[in-house]
Parts: sequence; structure tokens; C-alpha cells
Amino acid sequence: MSRTLVRFCAACGQPIARRVPTGDNRERDVCEQCGAVHYVNPRPVVGTIPVWQDTVLLCRRAIEPRYGKWTLPAGFMEVGETTQEGALRETREEARARVTLGPLFTMIDVPYIEQVHVFFRAELLDLDFAPGAESLEVRLFREAEVPWQELAFRTVAQTLRLFFADRARGEFGTHVHAIDAPARLAQAGRS
Amino acid sequence: MSRTLVRFCAACGQPIARRVPTGDNRERDVCEQCGAVHYVNPRPVVGTIPVWQDTVLLCRRAIEPRYGKWTLPAGFMEVGETTQEGALRETREEARARVTLGPLFTMIDVPYIEQVHVFFRAELLDLDFAPGAESLEVRLFREAEVPWQELAFRTVAQTLRLFFADRARGEFGTHVHAIDAPARLAQAGRS
Repeated sequence: MSRTLVRFCAACGQPIARRVPTGDNRERDVCEQCGAVHYVNPRPVVGTIPVWQDTVLLCRRAIEPRYGKWTLPAGFMEVGETTQEGALRETREEARARVTLGPLFTMIDVPYIEQVHVFFRAELLDLDFAPGAESLEVRLFREAEVPWQELAFRTVAQTLRLFFADRARGEFGTHVHAIDAPARLAQAGRS
Repeated sequence: MSRTLVRFCAACGQPIARRVPTGDNRERDVCEQCGAVHYVNPRPVVGTIPVWQDTVLLCRRAIEPRYGKWTLPAGFMEVGETTQEGALRETREEARARVTLGPLFTMIDVPYIEQVHVFFRAELLDLDFAPGAESLEVRLFREAEVPWQELAFRTVAQTLRLFFADRARGEFGTHVHAIDAPARLAQAGRS
């Protein structure tokens, strides 16, 4: 679900020009034919930290990217839903799990891939979960069992680290962070 | 900056079909010619609550929508920046103001216009502010002076209400809310 390179106007089908529109201060995809300006904005990814007693639910991915790696249930927010509705939907779709949603826990910017990842704390209502279409496996992990080297995304690893740290000190906060591009991307000028 | 109706493929310029792609569970804009799927996701709007002593800074809008109405400095998040960088940029652009950013204060979903509004608390570093290109006027308001009937957006009104309530009880939280469509839109089937 990476972005498509914009070469034609989605409104009229004519070729796109890359320029600063009148009254703006940065380059956009502009249609000289019909005047449409095609803005691009970062995309929200929403998910949960589903908890059962002293364990956390993780899903092993059945899709790319990161096939076979473990993640918290999360995915791209859809139009027409709220962040909370999206987080519940992803938890249901990826883990067939029913949860009660808790407070916002992390909001982590990933600017080099144009995403903002938002995780809510959540409590599993029962143990009736199972892999959804995008998961190979779903299971509960105690902190000592978390496969840190096999996690799919850095925002998931950071959210889990913060979760266990807050749990250890007996008080949960809301955390705002940003993740820098890996060195190999920064060197390639994509940072 | 509303969305353009997608009728042609941005990658190859051919007409778009509206259908459920293989492996997906909802209708998307799909190009039958080149196979591109054009996903649409909610857009983040980022801003600040700039505080000076017992006052809050508001901007009177010089642009549509809501020309002439008052708002907190905020705007669409741009690709390549973090939520915090975006909030600082909007504060600089709309109010020519320099602030120190504080904690995340509100995250308010506005699903019927496909947006998520995020506001950070902030402290003005000095009184050297002025209207930017998108503002007619910028000034500081005590709580009793806030032009509640002249505010541009409901997310701004809600953020200000929560801010003054938290300030009154002497403790600031992080608030997650959602705003429903106005009745006239819900009736028109857009809710």
C-alpha cells in the first residue's frame, strides 16, 4: 500500500505538472488543464495493545511487508471512521479479537514513510481470538517471551518497550515520539 | 483543500473503476489498465494552543473556509514532517509566533470530513507575533474574552473548552474525542 507516483490528473486524466500553486509555498502536483491541485498528506496507522492479565497479544504477519514477523494489530485508518473505530476494526480483522478500548498510549511519527502510528491500550474481553486473513498466527506473550528480534515494525517495538516500562512503574502515560529514517535511507537522501 | 473526485488513474491516465480489489474487503479506486489501487485515508490536521500568562493566542482567518472567524493556529500536516514539526510550522506561518511545544492535548476525529485534528499545548516565547498570509488578525484572549460564537471550527472550540476546564482544575490531560456530522449532513446521508 505504498503511494502511486502521480503523473496524470485524477480529475481529468491530463498530465500533471510539479510546481508551487498560487498562494502556496511548496511544490504540489498541479493540473494545468483543469486547475486541480493534488495534495498529499501523511497517513494515520491505528492499532491496539491488547492485554490479558500479564500478557500482550501479537500477530504474525501473513502479508508483506515483513511477512512472518510479529506485530501489534494495526493498519491504515479508513475514511469515514475514527481512530478508535479503526483500531478496533484492525484488532478484529487481524486477530479476530474483541477488546475494550483504553486510553491513547503512543502517537509515533514516521516522517520518512509519511505515516503517523497511533496505538490505544486495550483489554481482551475473552480468549476467543484467532488469525485473521492477514495473520499466520496470533498468541499471547509475557514480557520475557516477546520476540524482540522478530518484530515487524519499529513503532511496534517502541510501543511495547514503553508499555512494559509504564507497567513496571505502575503508571501509564501518553507518549509522543518520532522515528528517524534508518541510516541507509538517510544516506540515500530520503531522510 | 477538499478532495478531488478520482476519475482517472494518477499513474497511467486511464479511467478508474470502483470495485473491491482482490484480497481487500472494501471498494477502492482501481485502474484496470495498470493495476494501481488508489487508496484514500483520513488526513491529519496539526496545531497548537499558544499560551501567554493567562491568555491564549487566536488567529482570525483570511482564507476560506470560515473567512473572518477565529481559530487556533493549525493546518494540514505535510509529508516529510512530524506532527510536532507541523504544529510549529503552522504556528509560525499563521501567527508568526515562536513557541515552546508542550504535551499532546487533544486528538479529535472528524470522520465525516475524513480528518483527525491534533493539538499540542505550547508557550509563547515572546509577544513578537503578527498575522501571517492566512490570517487577518492575531491576538491574545483571556478565557472571558474568547469569541465562542465566532470560532471557525468545532475542534477548536472543543480544544479550548477542554483547555480552560483542565486549567481550572490545575491538571492537564490528553483528550481523545470524535465529532459527529452536523444534523444537516447526517440527514443528507453523509454521516
